Amino acid sequence: MDRRSFLRTSALGGTAAAATTLAAPAIAQGNRTLTLVTTWGRGLAGVHDAAQRAADTITAMTDGALTIDLKAAGELVGAFEVFDAVTSGQADMYHGADYYFINQHPAYAFFTGVPFGMAPQELSNWYYQGGGMEFHDELGSIFGLKSFLGGNTGPQSGGWFSKEITGPEDFQGLKFRMPGLGGETLGRMGASVQNLPGAEVYQALASGAIDGTEWIGPWADEKAGFQEITKFYYTAGMHEPAAGLSLAMNRDVYDSLAPAHQKIFEIAAGEAHQWNLAQFMNENGAALQRLQAGGVTVLEFPDSVWDAMGAAAKETMDAYAGDEIYDRIRASYNESMAASSGWIQRSEGVYRAQRDRVMG
Amino acid sequence: MDRRSFLRTSALGGTAAAATTLAAPAIAQGNRTLTLVTTWGRGLAGVHDAAQRAADTITAMTDGALTIDLKAAGELVGAFEVFDAVTSGQADMYHGADYYFINQHPAYAFFTGVPFGMAPQELSNWYYQGGGMEFHDELGSIFGLKSFLGGNTGPQSGGWFSKEITGPEDFQGLKFRMPGLGGETLGRMGASVQNLPGAEVYQALASGAIDGTEWIGPWADEKAGFQEITKFYYTAGMHEPAAGLSLAMNRDVYDSLAPAHQKIFEIAAGEAHQWNLAQFMNENGAALQRLQAGGVTVLEFPDSVWDAMGAAAKETMDAYAGDEIYDRIRASYNESMAASSGWIQRSEGVYRAQRDRVMG
Repeated sequence: MDRRSFLRTSALGGTAAAATTLAAPAIAQGNRTLTLVTTWGRGLAGVHDAAQRAADTITAMTDGALTIDLKAAGELVGAFEVFDAVTSGQADMYHGADYYFINQHPAYAFFTGVPFGMAPQELSNWYYQGGGMEFHDELGSIFGLKSFLGGNTGPQSGGWFSKEITGPEDFQGLKFRMPGLGGETLGRMGASVQNLPGAEVYQALASGAIDGTEWIGPWADEKAGFQEITKFYYTAGMHEPAAGLSLAMNRDVYDSLAPAHQKIFEIAAGEAHQWNLAQFMNENGAALQRLQAGGVTVLEFPDSVWDAMGAAAKETMDAYAGDEIYDRIRASYNESMAASSGWIQRSEGVYRAQRDRVMG
Repeated sequence: MDRRSFLRTSALGGTAAAATTLAAPAIAQGNRTLTLVTTWGRGLAGVHDAAQRAADTITAMTDGALTIDLKAAGELVGAFEVFDAVTSGQADMYHGADYYFINQHPAYAFFTGVPFGMAPQELSNWYYQGGGMEFHDELGSIFGLKSFLGGNTGPQSGGWFSKEITGPEDFQGLKFRMPGLGGETLGRMGASVQNLPGAEVYQALASGAIDGTEWIGPWADEKAGFQEITKFYYTAGMHEPAAGLSLAMNRDVYDSLAPAHQKIFEIAAGEAHQWNLAQFMNENGAALQRLQAGGVTVLEFPDSVWDAMGAAAKETMDAYAGDEIYDRIRASYNESMAASSGWIQRSEGVYRAQRDRVMG
C-alpha cells in the first residue's frame, strides 16, 4: 500500500462524513428498520453469528422499535464495500473486521488485530477500560461512523499450507491469503499476499489461485472446508492474536436515535463481543481433534519463522509511523499490552502451569 | 459444613421460592423501581462497580422504565442476607458472589470459582456457550431466582500473610479469610478458615481476629488497604482462578417483566461481566507495581504448597459427590475446562511464549 493513500482517503472520508448528513434514514411508522450489511457470507461460522447475535439482541431489547435487517456480503453490497455503504448512508450499519479498511486509515488495524499484538483479554482490557473504545470512536468520527467492537474470533491460527514450513524461505513467492498488517508482514517476508473476503477463500484455494490461506481457527476453518484441499495446519500465528470484529453505525443515524436506543446499540455490541469470543474458544478444541482425526497434520512454526515474522512485523508497524493518530493509538496500545501481559503471566500464567503440573 | 445441611436448606429454598409468589413487586405509575441489594460495601473497588454498571445500563436501556435502586451491603440487608432477601421478595435483585451461598446448594460454587477450576476465558466458554448458563438457571429455579453472571474479578491472588509461606505446614492453625470451596480446601490443610464479607476484612485483619486474608487481586486489595497491615503478598492462587459475580432477580419479578426488559436484564448482566473482568485485569498490573514500590514482598507459593492444595482441593470437590445436580454440573464443568484449556495453550499459550521470546 502507498503510505500516502490513506491520508488521501482520510480526506475523502471527511467528505463522505459530510455527505451523510444528507442521507435520509429509513423511518417506518412506529418501528424503524435499520439495514446491517456485513463482510461475511451468509451463515459463515462464528463471524456471521456475531452479526446476527447483535442484530437479534437490538431487535429484542427495543421490542422491535429498532428492527435490524441483516444483509450478508453480496446481498446488498460486496464484503469490502460495507464501509463506503455505511459512511455514504446507503446502509445504516456494518459488521466486519475493521482491518479490511486500513486503506481508509491504517489505525483501523488496531481494532481487529496487528502482528505480535494483543491477545483477547489484553484487547478487552485496552478497549473497555484502557481508552481503546475512545480511540475507535475518534477514528469513526473522521468517517461519520459510530463504532464498537461487536465480536472476536480469539487467537487466529497460522493457517493452511500444502507442505510443511521449515524456515522463513518457504514464504518466498508463496501465494497466501492474509488481510491487514499481518498480510503486509508476510509480504515483507516475500509472500505474494492476497486479501479475499471469507466467502471467496475456499474457491481460490481449490482453484490454485492461492497456495495457502489463513482464515480463523479450527472450528471456522473446518466449517469452511479447507481440510479438503490442504493438509498442513499451523495453529498459533502472529498475525491476529485476537481479532476484534466491529459493529459500526452511520453517525447521523446514531445521533438520531433516542438515548436509550443508543445505549442498547453499545451494550448489544459489547455483549456480542463476549458471546462470540466464547463461541470460537469453546468450539476450537473439539474441531482441532476432528481435523487431526481426519488426516490433517497439525504443526507449529519453527522458531526461525517466528523470528523472521517478528522482524517483518516491526518493519510493518514502523512503516506507518508519522501519522499523528496512528502514533497515538499505537503508543496507547503498546503500553496497555505490556501492563496486561505482565499481570496475565503472573496470575493466570502461573496458575495454569501449576494446575497442569499438579492436576495433570 | 455438614454435607447434609445443603440438602436440608435446599428443601427450605423450595419453600422460599413458593413464598415469593405472594410477594408484591413495587410498581410505580409508569416507571418501576427495582431494589438491588449487594454483597459489597458501597464503593468497594470493582465488585460494587460491576453492580453499579449493570444497574446503570438497565436503567439507561429501559429509559428509566426499570429504575434500579442499588442498596449496598448493610443499607437494606447484610452482605450474606441478600440471597434470602431476594428469594423471599424483600428485595428484587442481588449482585454477589454465588459461592457465598454454598450452604443453599454446593453447586453454586461453580458460578463463582472452585479450587483448581476454570480461568476466566474457560468460564466464559462454558457459561455462554457450553451449557453453564442453563445450569445456573436450573439452580436458580429451585430457589425462585433468575440468575446470570454479571461480573468477574479475574484470577484471584493467593493473598496476604504476615510471614513467608515455606511449606504446607505453615497453614496449620492459620486464621485465614477465604470463602467457598477454596476456603474448605485451606481448612483441610489445617487452617482455621473464616468467611467474612469484603467490607469487614480490613478490620478483622487489623484487630488480629485473622492472621491473613485473600480478597481479590492487587488493585482491589490495594484499595482495601491490606498492605498497611501485612507485607507478604502471594499473586497466583488456587482458590478462584476466575471469580464470576452473579446478578440474580426474584423469578416472579422476572416473569412479570416484558420480554424486551427480560432481554435487557440478561444482556446488561453479560456486558457487565466482560466490562468488569476487563476492569480488574486492566488495573492489576500497575497496582502490583505500586504495592512493590511501597514495600510489599511479592511471592509465589512453593510447589510443595501447590501440591498440598491440589490434594486438599480434590478431597473438597469429592466431598459433595452424590448430589445429582452437583455431579451433573461438575462433570460438564470439568469436560469443558479440559477442552478449553487444551486449545488456549495451543493457541494463546504458544503465541504468548513466542511473543515474549521474539519481541522481548
